[in-house]
Amino acid sequence: MMRESVEDRVLESLRPTQFQLAMLTRLYGLIQTRLSTCPAVAGVGGRVEAVGSFAKGTLLSDKWEIDVFLLLEGVDDAWIEERARSLLYTCLHGLPVISKYSQHPYVTLAMMGMEADIVPAKLVSDPSQARGVERTPFHTRWVKERINPRLADEVRLLKSFLKGIGVYGAETARGGFSGYLAEVLTIGYNGFRGVLEEASRWRPPVIIDPHGAGDPEALARRYRDSPLVIPDPVDPGRNVGAAVTMRSLATFILAARTYLEAPGEWYFHTHQPTLPPVSRAPAVGVCLEGPMYTKPPQDVEGRLARLSSFLATKLGEAGFRVLHHGFSWDGGSRAVAYVLVESLTLPEIEALRGPEAWASVERVSRFIEKRLREGGSVWPQHGLLHGFRPRRIRSALEALGRALGMAPLPWGARVSRAFTCPGPGCEGWCGREVERGSDPTPAWIRLAYTRGRPPS
Amino acid sequence: MMRESVEDRVLESLRPTQFQLAMLTRLYGLIQTRLSTCPAVAGVGGRVEAVGSFAKGTLLSDKWEIDVFLLLEGVDDAWIEERARSLLYTCLHGLPVISKYSQHPYVTLAMMGMEADIVPAKLVSDPSQARGVERTPFHTRWVKERINPRLADEVRLLKSFLKGIGVYGAETARGGFSGYLAEVLTIGYNGFRGVLEEASRWRPPVIIDPHGAGDPEALARRYRDSPLVIPDPVDPGRNVGAAVTMRSLATFILAARTYLEAPGEWYFHTHQPTLPPVSRAPAVGVCLEGPMYTKPPQDVEGRLARLSSFLATKLGEAGFRVLHHGFSWDGGSRAVAYVLVESLTLPEIEALRGPEAWASVERVSRFIEKRLREGGSVWPQHGLLHGFRPRRIRSALEALGRALGMAPLPWGARVSRAFTCPGPGCEGWCGREVERGSDPTPAWIRLAYTRGRPPS
Repeated sequence: MMRESVEDRVLESLRPTQFQLAMLTRLYGLIQTRLSTCPAVAGVGGRVEAVGSFAKGTLLSDKWEIDVFLLLEGVDDAWIEERARSLLYTCLHGLPVISKYSQHPYVTLAMMGMEADIVPAKLVSDPSQARGVERTPFHTRWVKERINPRLADEVRLLKSFLKGIGVYGAETARGGFSGYLAEVLTIGYNGFRGVLEEASRWRPPVIIDPHGAGDPEALARRYRDSPLVIPDPVDPGRNVGAAVTMRSLATFILAARTYLEAPGEWYFHTHQPTLPPVSRAPAVGVCLEGPMYTKPPQDVEGRLARLSSFLATKLGEAGFRVLHHGFSWDGGSRAVAYVLVESLTLPEIEALRGPEAWASVERVSRFIEKRLREGGSVWPQHGLLHGFRPRRIRSALEALGRALGMAPLPWGARVSRAFTCPGPGCEGWCGREVERGSDPTPAWIRLAYTRGRPPS
Repeated sequence: MMRESVEDRVLESLRPTQFQLAMLTRLYGLIQTRLSTCPAVAGVGGRVEAVGSFAKGTLLSDKWEIDVFLLLEGVDDAWIEERARSLLYTCLHGLPVISKYSQHPYVTLAMMGMEADIVPAKLVSDPSQARGVERTPFHTRWVKERINPRLADEVRLLKSFLKGIGVYGAETARGGFSGYLAEVLTIGYNGFRGVLEEASRWRPPVIIDPHGAGDPEALARRYRDSPLVIPDPVDPGRNVGAAVTMRSLATFILAARTYLEAPGEWYFHTHQPTLPPVSRAPAVGVCLEGPMYTKPPQDVEGRLARLSSFLATKLGEAGFRVLHHGFSWDGGSRAVAYVLVESLTLPEIEALRGPEAWASVERVSRFIEKRLREGGSVWPQHGLLHGFRPRRIRSALEALGRALGMAPLPWGARVSRAFTCPGPGCEGWCGREVERGSDPTPAWIRLAYTRGRPPS
């Protein structure tokens, strides 16, 4: 059958190789040995545990990464915060370790193209007592108990699908599905197709409990702003879908439906083509420079997402019709945030609606006096006062410039220039990235509706 | 007191002179004699009656006009329609009479700067049996029984005020207050000030019955779209305010409030200055030529009002933000209709909102396929699909040109050109009229808020 052959073909490229698994296993063995024989760890009492997709057997072929937890007994949060890092440095002495921090201290060990995140955490015995990263070992154990080789392949398909349509990852900048959520869904609905079939019938807010873990309705009342509510099987008072935004959920529902209608390889991240923009919206962008690579990628991207959203809000307030906003980061010291607008220039005058003609004399007079003072016009029409005034800020670039003073930049970054596309400043790396973003149609949508043929 | 002195001063100019009244009385005497001694009238049985403001004693000084009814016994509608005109021509033979028609045949006799409209109608004894113009004699008699010289002056003030703020006249193009409505209100609320004080507290829908004539609530249910409902004292099943549009009512309420706050002569039509435009909105206009003077002014103006409203609707549908629309007619063979817009040019692309991502597959696919076929873009954002497409019609002049094919023109008129202001075609009489209309602020609003000083 055509449908299965798409998934079979894709799976070939998603499964890690034996060599890859052997290499990562050796790396884990090295870390495990170092930590469990380390006198400093023995001093406080600790245990080493592999977590994440490597541990669960759901690893993708392009991930040469492992996650390792050092679970420490009899320490408190302050101890972790202040002393865990130096403990790890001592135990891993001589290995290429760099220190990181994202709500919690951890280190990354990078060697031979592989990376291991090593996270110190309190040993907690009851999952309902666990907070933040402390939940990860419980999630890993829950999945390991339920996974089998067939389901592991199904998880790989779902994760690759989520990546392909741009909604994989629970970090703020993405607002998508975490790996654990993908596993909970795949196990709950017995495979990739089962999840898509469920999702194709979803209508937000989606309140589900495939494992009968808790009281999803009560949970929905607590997570009132979440479009996706699903109790965490290891801690039913938590919502595993808390990070998923409406945009991500809507994208997933849409992609599930179109995929089931006509499957295609281009939904999966390993087969994602980069299409040239077909149509372009005008854009204003701001080019940033600075040592952003020294911060955890999640934090930099979260900040860039906030920046583009902030600029979009300000442009909207200035009267521009905002279509989309986004950012790009080269992982190093260059980033760009941009906003797509219907037009880079606003009309000379600005139409305004006033109060009803029979509103309080104060409100009516305020509207009339303002318009006349501004050199504008005002008149009754139907029941309302209408008016217009000369517009002060007509250029999107000027509006962006004014907003930049208050804008949240990533740490260490500074504005190198603001520009428009089209425009004389639309050049270099920043210009190219904005031009690429100026057609916001995702590649999978174009391909789904051209039956896999790239548009001419 | 300052307030009264404004009205006293204005009244000086509103009262007709003795000479004017004597002249109009002589004209009426002539017509009355001619008609009542005419054998053709005696043949069917008829009676002559003065109606309108001349008969009621509420005439304004700038009106050298009388209205005369020839009330015929024992004839039916068909007789009036087919034979009344030749009856009048026979009886008025030798006088300068021209034939007119506006829902009903009538003639105008014009001599020595005076005009008399002479209207043939069935003699009806019960006002509830009267239709159209047949009601006029009942209205005249009702007012004559209740008016006195003081109230006649108050009616003059109100009529002049309504004219000054542009809401006098029940014809379609105006949608304002009829003379009879002004009289009903003035008598009901005991004077000009009384009416303004009532109006300053109105909030549409305004349902009133100052004469206790009927059941205004029941009437309001019948006239559901009327913002002003007031039973006709001579026929309580009719709404005297039926012609008043929301725009006119809102304008009157607003002007009543601002006048009571600070009276000024500039509210009255005899003191209306023509102010130069202070601010201008871009406009598209269409210049018309043809023998419009051969049709009754009400009909030509009604048609021009429909034309400008039609063009405004079409421009709105094409994506332009419409501020206002209007027309001007020189009373002869030149007219112009225009639409004020926020901008004469639209952006290259057009933003569109699509269905929810979880709407039916048909709706979602239709939206996506259309955008891709049009060379546009489409993407999910929050819960909705968003998109844009290249815009086909970007110029207001082009959109106007396309709408003109289906536009309702006044009879006998043809389009001589379409143009924009500013623009190369914004010249001549048409250009000047559009430029004058491009600041829609009524003079009385500007003057009310600059305390009578014309803006610099």
